[in-house]
Amino acid sequence: MGIVVQKYGGSSVANADGIKRVAQRIVDAKRDGHDVVVVVSAMGDTTDELIDLAEQVSPLPAGRELDMLLTAGERISMALLAMAIGNLGQEARSFTGSQAGVITDGTHGKAKIIDVTPGRIEKALELGAVAIVAGFQGVSQDTKDITTLGRGGSDTTAVALAAALKADVCEIYSDVDGVFTADPRIVPSARKRERISYEEMLEMAACGAKILHLRCVEYARRYDMPIHVRSSFNKLTGTWITDQKDNDTMEQAIIAGVAHDRSEAKITVVGVPDRVGEAARIFEALADSAVNLDMVVQNVSAASTNLTDISFTLPRDDGQTAMSALARIQDEVGYDSLLYDDQIGKVSLIGAGMRSHPGVTARFFAALAGAGVNIEMISTSEIRISVIVDEAQVDDAVTATHTAFDLDSEDVEAVVYGGTGR
Amino acid sequence: MGIVVQKYGGSSVANADGIKRVAQRIVDAKRDGHDVVVVVSAMGDTTDELIDLAEQVSPLPAGRELDMLLTAGERISMALLAMAIGNLGQEARSFTGSQAGVITDGTHGKAKIIDVTPGRIEKALELGAVAIVAGFQGVSQDTKDITTLGRGGSDTTAVALAAALKADVCEIYSDVDGVFTADPRIVPSARKRERISYEEMLEMAACGAKILHLRCVEYARRYDMPIHVRSSFNKLTGTWITDQKDNDTMEQAIIAGVAHDRSEAKITVVGVPDRVGEAARIFEALADSAVNLDMVVQNVSAASTNLTDISFTLPRDDGQTAMSALARIQDEVGYDSLLYDDQIGKVSLIGAGMRSHPGVTARFFAALAGAGVNIEMISTSEIRISVIVDEAQVDDAVTATHTAFDLDSEDVEAVVYGGTGR
Repeated sequence: MGIVVQKYGGSSVANADGIKRVAQRIVDAKRDGHDVVVVVSAMGDTTDELIDLAEQVSPLPAGRELDMLLTAGERISMALLAMAIGNLGQEARSFTGSQAGVITDGTHGKAKIIDVTPGRIEKALELGAVAIVAGFQGVSQDTKDITTLGRGGSDTTAVALAAALKADVCEIYSDVDGVFTADPRIVPSARKRERISYEEMLEMAACGAKILHLRCVEYARRYDMPIHVRSSFNKLTGTWITDQKDNDTMEQAIIAGVAHDRSEAKITVVGVPDRVGEAARIFEALADSAVNLDMVVQNVSAASTNLTDISFTLPRDDGQTAMSALARIQDEVGYDSLLYDDQIGKVSLIGAGMRSHPGVTARFFAALAGAGVNIEMISTSEIRISVIVDEAQVDDAVTATHTAFDLDSEDVEAVVYGGTGR
Repeated sequence: MGIVVQKYGGSSVANADGIKRVAQRIVDAKRDGHDVVVVVSAMGDTTDELIDLAEQVSPLPAGRELDMLLTAGERISMALLAMAIGNLGQEARSFTGSQAGVITDGTHGKAKIIDVTPGRIEKALELGAVAIVAGFQGVSQDTKDITTLGRGGSDTTAVALAAALKADVCEIYSDVDGVFTADPRIVPSARKRERISYEEMLEMAACGAKILHLRCVEYARRYDMPIHVRSSFNKLTGTWITDQKDNDTMEQAIIAGVAHDRSEAKITVVGVPDRVGEAARIFEALADSAVNLDMVVQNVSAASTNLTDISFTLPRDDGQTAMSALARIQDEVGYDSLLYDDQIGKVSLIGAGMRSHPGVTARFFAALAGAGVNIEMISTSEIRISVIVDEAQVDDAVTATHTAFDLDSEDVEAVVYGGTGR
């Protein structure tokens, strides 16, 4: 049998019992005949505790040193996991990102993987050992400094290693059973998907499903590496994320799922003179402040005034930065005023099948109307429709949409739908 | 000015306040014009906490993994210290033992330094940065695995780096003001020594003075690297440990100090047949069990029985191992019985001056007799006399000896005499 890469998040290895439980799973996989490579995150709250220490000594720590500090977290969890596996009679060797050959650029805190040269991992596998690799970290190509990969870093490490090692599968373990048709905390009848395509998962991740980070899915799609998302607390089959181009389209569900996101805010720039270049000036100012925009809408200019309104959504965390950047250019652009609204939510309907099934948009909007939900903004991609609604109506919108597309399961499982670690 | 290597122990960087205080000291040294390299231990109890975690997942963790785990401790303290220095406007860069070029053999848990190639440290100094180096750790020459240096490891790292960088001095900071003529907790009138030779310090360290580990002093002597032992809590001059061969002997004190040690036990093998090879068999058995002996005494054989008694001292921690090893060879050797006594203490008088001053032994023993202290065993070197006494009489023995050799100070300082970290 081939190589399996398994990734365990911080909640799976939060304490000694968790580590021992995960160790047993790994040994089971090894005894099934696989070569096993494990990517592990820092234990539970370790990262937060380290960040807290950093804040106590410096309000603005150097990125290089913050990365050096935070990488201690995985060092601890990976060594403990290797010991626990050794205690079960199976040799295991832990490797830092650097030792595992995770080569990155030099952007501390959110480094990008440039190359993976897992020679020492392959050597360990040849010797019959399980290789444990620190997630979330690498070493910069130019300066040989330790880097961290930022959000979704451990998942991305796992997929990148799996691709470099030509593994059969990259298994991502968390406290969630898989990818669901909606958040089961909102829709108790949500079903676990058996399979979902890279594209659909990308849209799900971009639209607020926290189970996998966008970046990790992009990496998997690029290298066509199957991901199996599953729970570390049971042995159930989870959700397979694969390339489904070759699949029989008859089998493909029209709708993959309903995602939602409560982390965005909406800014409206009121009374922008409708001249060439004014909108560009606004978006330049936002880009200069490193604000990431999501949806953008510009109203048709009222002929009488020749003024228009521009609305966009962005992460709430960037709200203050964006408002300040816009305030600085008010005189230059000559707009009237700014409106800020963080009581919004985004509800997205995702499915590769909507390409070939007309009427999806009509059915979606009819469901929202039936539930009394007002649509504030709309954006679409080839396989997704997203709407901005009042935050208080997000649950109603998700539930109504889920039912309208016949996604409800008959046997409701009790599941916990949580975020993953880094 | 030249390079100064400073080493701070775990108690000096036990929390954020300690780290900030140490950072200020380092910046002061840099602003005085020195190139500064800092070796730092893990914060306070970090190492114990990590060992505790390891014990929770495995009763006998692999040495390689234990080293990987423990080295997370210095990684945290060095990154935090670099941040705190950066916050004072001085650039600082932290380096792991491996990055600093500390090359060791592959003996996990107590690796020996083979070579130091501090190219990255020199580069950082050239750029005007302070270099912060993780103590206690290195990388093995053959397998490139992370190693730890064992007891006294951080002090040894500091001296080894200082030697490789041809530093002017290696400053060892702890919570003690320097090397005293005796433990001030026992002898309040003990004086801080301004200078002491490598040889004397070696004997002091071997005889229970916990301020510096034997290994670090040996390294300093070999490379003739001056050590300045001082407190991180004040700016007082501490004690300089240097080569004093060239010093005017008139200035040299006859006695460097009185050391004591309560960590040993005594074993007596009673009724050993006085035949060639029997004693050798006993010491072979102890050596095979990796027991380190200190003092050894063999009584003259009583002619009537042709039986002798062999006594030796050893670390109490090795007591059970030694007794078991001896019990296993009782039939083979044919001795009568074993006696175990851990209610003993060792008191040592150390001074290079005793070479040229006859009568030191007589004065020492007279002082002990005057204090009513009975001598159980004696051992000597060229610059040291050690006696084993009843543990309850150690304080009396130290005080009487200190007074007999006129070591008492007129102005008694209130000091705390503690051990150093690793």
